[in-house]
Amino acid sequence: MEKITSKDNARIKAYAKLAVSRKERQRQGTFVLEGEKLLLEALRCGVEIRSVFAGERWLERHGEALPPEISGVCAAVSEGVEQRLAQSQTPQGVYAVCSMLDNPVNLAKMEEGGCLLGLWDLQDPGNVGTMIRTADAMGMDGVVLSRECCDLYSLKTLRAAMGSSFRMPVLVTDMADFLRESGFTSFAAVVGEAEPLGQLQFPPKTVIVIGNEGNGLSPKQVGCCSRQVTIPMRGRAESLNAAMAAAILMWEASSRGAVR
Amino acid sequence: MEKITSKDNARIKAYAKLAVSRKERQRQGTFVLEGEKLLLEALRCGVEIRSVFAGERWLERHGEALPPEISGVCAAVSEGVEQRLAQSQTPQGVYAVCSMLDNPVNLAKMEEGGCLLGLWDLQDPGNVGTMIRTADAMGMDGVVLSRECCDLYSLKTLRAAMGSSFRMPVLVTDMADFLRESGFTSFAAVVGEAEPLGQLQFPPKTVIVIGNEGNGLSPKQVGCCSRQVTIPMRGRAESLNAAMAAAILMWEASSRGAVR
Repeated sequence: MEKITSKDNARIKAYAKLAVSRKERQRQGTFVLEGEKLLLEALRCGVEIRSVFAGERWLERHGEALPPEISGVCAAVSEGVEQRLAQSQTPQGVYAVCSMLDNPVNLAKMEEGGCLLGLWDLQDPGNVGTMIRTADAMGMDGVVLSRECCDLYSLKTLRAAMGSSFRMPVLVTDMADFLRESGFTSFAAVVGEAEPLGQLQFPPKTVIVIGNEGNGLSPKQVGCCSRQVTIPMRGRAESLNAAMAAAILMWEASSRGAVR
Repeated sequence: MEKITSKDNARIKAYAKLAVSRKERQRQGTFVLEGEKLLLEALRCGVEIRSVFAGERWLERHGEALPPEISGVCAAVSEGVEQRLAQSQTPQGVYAVCSMLDNPVNLAKMEEGGCLLGLWDLQDPGNVGTMIRTADAMGMDGVVLSRECCDLYSLKTLRAAMGSSFRMPVLVTDMADFLRESGFTSFAAVVGEAEPLGQLQFPPKTVIVIGNEGNGLSPKQVGCCSRQVTIPMRGRAESLNAAMAAAILMWEASSRGAVR
């Protein structure tokens, strides 16, 4: 197995660039991930693994048992090089460059689908990842991200999604166009006057649309949706955070039958 | 109004210590907060404001309109001193030292209560704050934190709770003792075999118990609870994050009548 000991190695520099630059990821159609759990999940979900870098201690523990999709593209790296690769404070031992999933394929899966989550201009990668994970747990059929959302392929988003990014169909698109053209009934999640959750029945082909963390959906964005839904609040807090609202809405959609 | 221009001023140093040290907060029975919104919310909720430090620009905008509870204890600070006070990257203009709320009073409020959220060894301040905010929005009667939870009075927790820390009765106590002695029916939130949410009816005097972010409730902790509840998952994600699970459980408790 090749061993890389220089931080100036071209492949190491390319990895580091991909880790921090959304533009670079989009240009190449690739992304990076770190950690054994995420790597194995990506592999299980059919994500193409282009190259793997593994720290020596990790290789000592796992080298023998590596599946060929990993061992075939794996290089060992020295401790110094691993420090250059690691984006989290605790080094994860293994790092991979992967191909992005194919959006048109995902869209086709979605179009058969019953119930989607739409995220419009969400900015926090941890939030977006968590919501993708929750959508997966609730059996939603897919997630639609507006182009202005934070990057599906940033390490923080991937980490919070805990593999659900690979399992869920996720479409990144122009949200207004999608809502107009998709044929889904869209529910804008709003605070205040709207159809109260708990009474309404989500129809088949529903998309639940959640707005930006700080401001929620703008009036113009609400205007792009077919209907409006609100979570009745019994307490004194003015609103729920975006991820909490999404969890409750998806739970209701899933327990009230919109999700197959 | 007094003006403080030295970072070495004893009150400024005391503030900075309170901002970062849980031990110091507990020793003094005080905590600090920053930002106008949180300060006004604290005031509205009857939190005792001991002293306030205000940046000059903030004072120019708000000085005339300050309520006496703030102006009476307010000192102006120079820009350099404000940098010493600010814990977030964007300076918030105003900083206050407040007295902690009175736990025994809160406990009395809770004992009349219908439905509580119990957080056992939660470590992430943002998570804990968000769950307190959600509990408030769902009309829960109180929150019980185990002593090992992250600090209710850290700035991160206060910020995520958006004022709900002041509005909700919150009790910090030994969770095992509380569950044994309180007379509440406790539901351990678990993954897997348990009563499925959606079918069970929460009785009056319920506490929903959520475990640590990474590991959930330990078998021993589950053993301290009267019953176990699980959120049926239809997808492929193995579990929900703690805050999402809490939101869905509280929504069900609130929409199915345990919350008055």
